[in-house]
Amino acid sequence: MSFYVQTQTMPFTEVLPLESGASLASYELAYETYGHLNENKSNAILICHALNASHHVAGEYAGQANSQGWWDNMIGPGKPVDTDRFFVIGVNNLGSCFGSTGPMQINAATQKPYGADFPVITVQDWVDAQERLVTQLGIENLLAVMGGSLGGMQVLAWSMRYPKRLKHAIVIASAPNLTAENIAFNEVARRAIVTDPDFHDGHYYEHGVIPKRGLRIARMIGHITYLSDDVMNTRFGRQLRRVSDASDPITKGAQDYLYSTLEVEFQIESYLRHQGDKFAEYFDANTYLLITRALDYFDPAKAYGGSLSEAMACIEAKFLVISFTTDWRFSPQRSQELVKALLDNHRQVSYVNIDAPHGHDAFLLEDPQYMRVVRSYFQHL
Amino acid sequence: MSFYVQTQTMPFTEVLPLESGASLASYELAYETYGHLNENKSNAILICHALNASHHVAGEYAGQANSQGWWDNMIGPGKPVDTDRFFVIGVNNLGSCFGSTGPMQINAATQKPYGADFPVITVQDWVDAQERLVTQLGIENLLAVMGGSLGGMQVLAWSMRYPKRLKHAIVIASAPNLTAENIAFNEVARRAIVTDPDFHDGHYYEHGVIPKRGLRIARMIGHITYLSDDVMNTRFGRQLRRVSDASDPITKGAQDYLYSTLEVEFQIESYLRHQGDKFAEYFDANTYLLITRALDYFDPAKAYGGSLSEAMACIEAKFLVISFTTDWRFSPQRSQELVKALLDNHRQVSYVNIDAPHGHDAFLLEDPQYMRVVRSYFQHL
Repeated sequence: MSFYVQTQTMPFTEVLPLESGASLASYELAYETYGHLNENKSNAILICHALNASHHVAGEYAGQANSQGWWDNMIGPGKPVDTDRFFVIGVNNLGSCFGSTGPMQINAATQKPYGADFPVITVQDWVDAQERLVTQLGIENLLAVMGGSLGGMQVLAWSMRYPKRLKHAIVIASAPNLTAENIAFNEVARRAIVTDPDFHDGHYYEHGVIPKRGLRIARMIGHITYLSDDVMNTRFGRQLRRVSDASDPITKGAQDYLYSTLEVEFQIESYLRHQGDKFAEYFDANTYLLITRALDYFDPAKAYGGSLSEAMACIEAKFLVISFTTDWRFSPQRSQELVKALLDNHRQVSYVNIDAPHGHDAFLLEDPQYMRVVRSYFQHL
Repeated sequence: MSFYVQTQTMPFTEVLPLESGASLASYELAYETYGHLNENKSNAILICHALNASHHVAGEYAGQANSQGWWDNMIGPGKPVDTDRFFVIGVNNLGSCFGSTGPMQINAATQKPYGADFPVITVQDWVDAQERLVTQLGIENLLAVMGGSLGGMQVLAWSMRYPKRLKHAIVIASAPNLTAENIAFNEVARRAIVTDPDFHDGHYYEHGVIPKRGLRIARMIGHITYLSDDVMNTRFGRQLRRVSDASDPITKGAQDYLYSTLEVEFQIESYLRHQGDKFAEYFDANTYLLITRALDYFDPAKAYGGSLSEAMACIEAKFLVISFTTDWRFSPQRSQELVKALLDNHRQVSYVNIDAPHGHDAFLLEDPQYMRVVRSYFQHL
């Protein structure tokens, strides 16, 4: 059973200095809250979203079918993050395309959409903007900041940039930075978008077009990296899209190929094309570039000569770190680097490597052990 | 020290029936030979190439710098496959773009380039065409057929389709079929090509353009899958393209980002873009579609209800199977499936899993253990 929620918007008129040296004169953040802030404002939990998600974390919109939030299995009344106890905040990141100020919005300076002129945003910038929202909501200290994947990087940034403002940091399926292979996949996706003739140097809004070809390719690449090899074989294997008569003893279940380079032949192709098509309908290309770049740039150890332990020395929060055995995008080893750096600093950290078949996507799915671990952690807060 | 070689062309005028039901009325195959065929014609070795390679396997072209064949480290006088002893044949596959009949050539029926009308070719079709070349060269029995990756699939097809025509089958970094993930990567690459506006449904020759954007993306994706995560981190890691003054004590080796979504920031991006650019200059887009589809379709177990052991029951050749520990495109497990199916049939098989850091690319590189294994196998033939 779900519950109804509404999106709110908070305007900010104080200049936000960005890590790049640029700044945003004013901006808005879209957000949602679930549950009630208690009297001493000590039960607030901030949820940070990953690449294509938004502030709509839990609940659903009245009168809108299939409008559950992206982490609705995790957050809500009686769920692992129980909104009967906690006040949970979901916020859409700056530069995203779901309500917060981003490339699609009008630049007050030019009265045109920002497009490619929207400044490059980093994980640190997101966290700075989130901190202002939290402050505006009257919350001095967060009980926890929680996120998966890129959301986990924001949790890390919170714990280093505002060490006294959060008691618990929950980092799921994340990493202290991207590997060369991670950056490589992002780069191919970006090249697919920016070399689409409909990209128009990022000013496609003015041309009334959308670089959908590029967005489709970007999403298809992404999807391959979200799933494990095993789960792909289990779900799709070499199944052809057309289903033959399996009871026919002559073909022994073998199906004829179409012998085409252009048609959909295998189920996995159909699935990926569908994912690409869907994504190109709702996601903004400039946002895709900005968010993948924020991923690339995140590297807290960089300013400390590569020492993650030194970078994390300032941390005061207690950590729960979760990884998934079959996640090859952000492998368990990457989570273990975080755990090690925390232990180097004698910080309190719980770590679980969940044996789940689903790859990186597992952090969004309802694995019983995973849910139990999160529930148990929050029950003891 | 290398040796000079020349490409030859063999015309065929007998109709070649294809697995799809289509046929080629006439065609040519480009090929090269190294070493000398002995008197009883018992020392011939056929080399099958992978995706972007050709008949130019070894040696170099007189007066042409950097023209070494793609397996020049493996094949030549005194090399693991010693052309002082063996007569080695390299052949360009049908549908390829390096001299054999393919989509770029004129279709006699229309007097225009085949383009997208070139029939879909399978691994079996390649092997049938190669068999005719071998016969034309006066060779009844091959001492060995050898190949890596897609080349290894051709070796498998040879051993099943012409079991009496080869004594040894050398299958390197290959697999009995593609996994869903393998097909997925191929599909994304193909979509990048066919959705490039310069593709013109495969008839871009007539429009005087080349779908280079798509080819670049396809190659970038391919390259990521050829390398291991480890070797990418070792070679590129998170290195920025611009090199800062590492002796500067203030930056502690940290370099400033450009803060751009479009510029090359990391070395890995520079490398991938370069690989993509190079590839788009020399490789044909229709060939890319054909060859990746041949990979997708290859599945000898399909006609036997999925039983590889049944499919391989007809094999008479002795096998050498080699895999590489860090190859995640065609993992060692896939080679082990082949070994198991051979053992199920009580066939003679040697198998080595080489501990090499380079991923799938390792089969082209000069790993000492790998070279030793191949040399030793051929020394005992």
